[in-house]
Amino acid sequence: MTYCVGMLLDAGLVMLADSRTNAGVDNISTFRKVTILERPGERVFVLMTAGNLSLTQSVIGLLREALEVPEGQANLYNVANMFEAARCVGDAIRAVHARDAESLETFKMEFNASVILGGQIRGEPPRMFNIYSAGNFIEATEETCYFQIGEFKYGKPIIDRVINRKVRLQRAAKCGLVSMDSTIRSNLTVGMPIDVVTVKTDEYRVSSHKVVEPDDEYFHLVRQSWGDSLIQAFRDLPDPDWL
Amino acid sequence: MTYCVGMLLDAGLVMLADSRTNAGVDNISTFRKVTILERPGERVFVLMTAGNLSLTQSVIGLLREALEVPEGQANLYNVANMFEAARCVGDAIRAVHARDAESLETFKMEFNASVILGGQIRGEPPRMFNIYSAGNFIEATEETCYFQIGEFKYGKPIIDRVINRKVRLQRAAKCGLVSMDSTIRSNLTVGMPIDVVTVKTDEYRVSSHKVVEPDDEYFHLVRQSWGDSLIQAFRDLPDPDWL
Repeated sequence: MTYCVGMLLDAGLVMLADSRTNAGVDNISTFRKVTILERPGERVFVLMTAGNLSLTQSVIGLLREALEVPEGQANLYNVANMFEAARCVGDAIRAVHARDAESLETFKMEFNASVILGGQIRGEPPRMFNIYSAGNFIEATEETCYFQIGEFKYGKPIIDRVINRKVRLQRAAKCGLVSMDSTIRSNLTVGMPIDVVTVKTDEYRVSSHKVVEPDDEYFHLVRQSWGDSLIQAFRDLPDPDWL
Repeated sequence: MTYCVGMLLDAGLVMLADSRTNAGVDNISTFRKVTILERPGERVFVLMTAGNLSLTQSVIGLLREALEVPEGQANLYNVANMFEAARCVGDAIRAVHARDAESLETFKMEFNASVILGGQIRGEPPRMFNIYSAGNFIEATEETCYFQIGEFKYGKPIIDRVINRKVRLQRAAKCGLVSMDSTIRSNLTVGMPIDVVTVKTDEYRVSSHKVVEPDDEYFHLVRQSWGDSLIQAFRDLPDPDWL
């Protein structure tokens, strides 16, 4: 399984992904789920993937391959805007579907590949898309400025409470890590390290890319303090008056 | 959808259930999901159900019907212990399956009916079971002393942090309400009122049954204080040092 969350803020993008992949609980590996493609100063893309790893790797493979093709074909480095970039990703998912879905079906395996695409192309503000297995997609808006893919439920409540477009990047990253912590605690198939990528508005490049390893001091602090605060907050609530 | 949580503590049982049922998002109703059966002083059962309402109502219907049958057949009022009670419930689910599953299949509907059964029969400590759609079941233990059915993920983290066998009934009820609050916030198909039932060890009867309505003062206090504390705890965490 996977947990990825992308947040589109006025200040830029914050994208977090875990790195655990499992084919059954006895076959767990570490695979990074973040792909960065950039032409610094002109355009930057951060892709996070969830689903069947063979499919998502193929999607990324096709998108990279297309960058090498000299002329004519749309690719992430020549599209005019983020909407067209999202269509590129959708097309790549559909191309993988056309090749693999029927064979997977023979083995009763679902075609499952989704992507959060965030980025900015000069001339536009940063934008973010949630692209589904069918290749269709939705875009983040003022009201709904974050997307999650994979095992999203455990970590959703804190994001719902904290995130809006005005939140600073630091705070959003902190929120993402708290959300990731809740998810990792509750679901074995989501695991460290965590990629945390930020893209500041109008920098047209990745501003920071931190790999939070299991022994990361800051993450330990977040885990510990957050856990302690929750317990304290819970203690401070009065007991029900009818018991 | 539904969210029910049952907790088995040294002090007794705490069982909470929401009361929203939906057949599509445009067809939402209130149905209570808690059934209490008791012979005060001798045995008490609390059942909470999740799944297709027509199926879970049939399961409860069969269990009640069996109480009226005079002789021979095992029912909840004549079984010797809670294990046999769980088998009664499993058998009722299987009887409904035998009658309804094939017809549902014709309409591509899944057979989905699960039950949390908690209670105590004189001569035993309180026990609790999670009974699946197939009629098989597991029992709560010292290590895993709570069960959830339905939309469980949003509300799981706080239970994981707080609940163990030593927790008092008041505290467990408070934890259940916090868990319910997180779930109701994140999922439209889980809704008020909330049934909160407690059974104190060796009372062999329901000790309290509170219906928490949307305007309940204590629940409002929990919602508000919990939300405020979370936000404060989040603010108190330092920002990531690498941003």
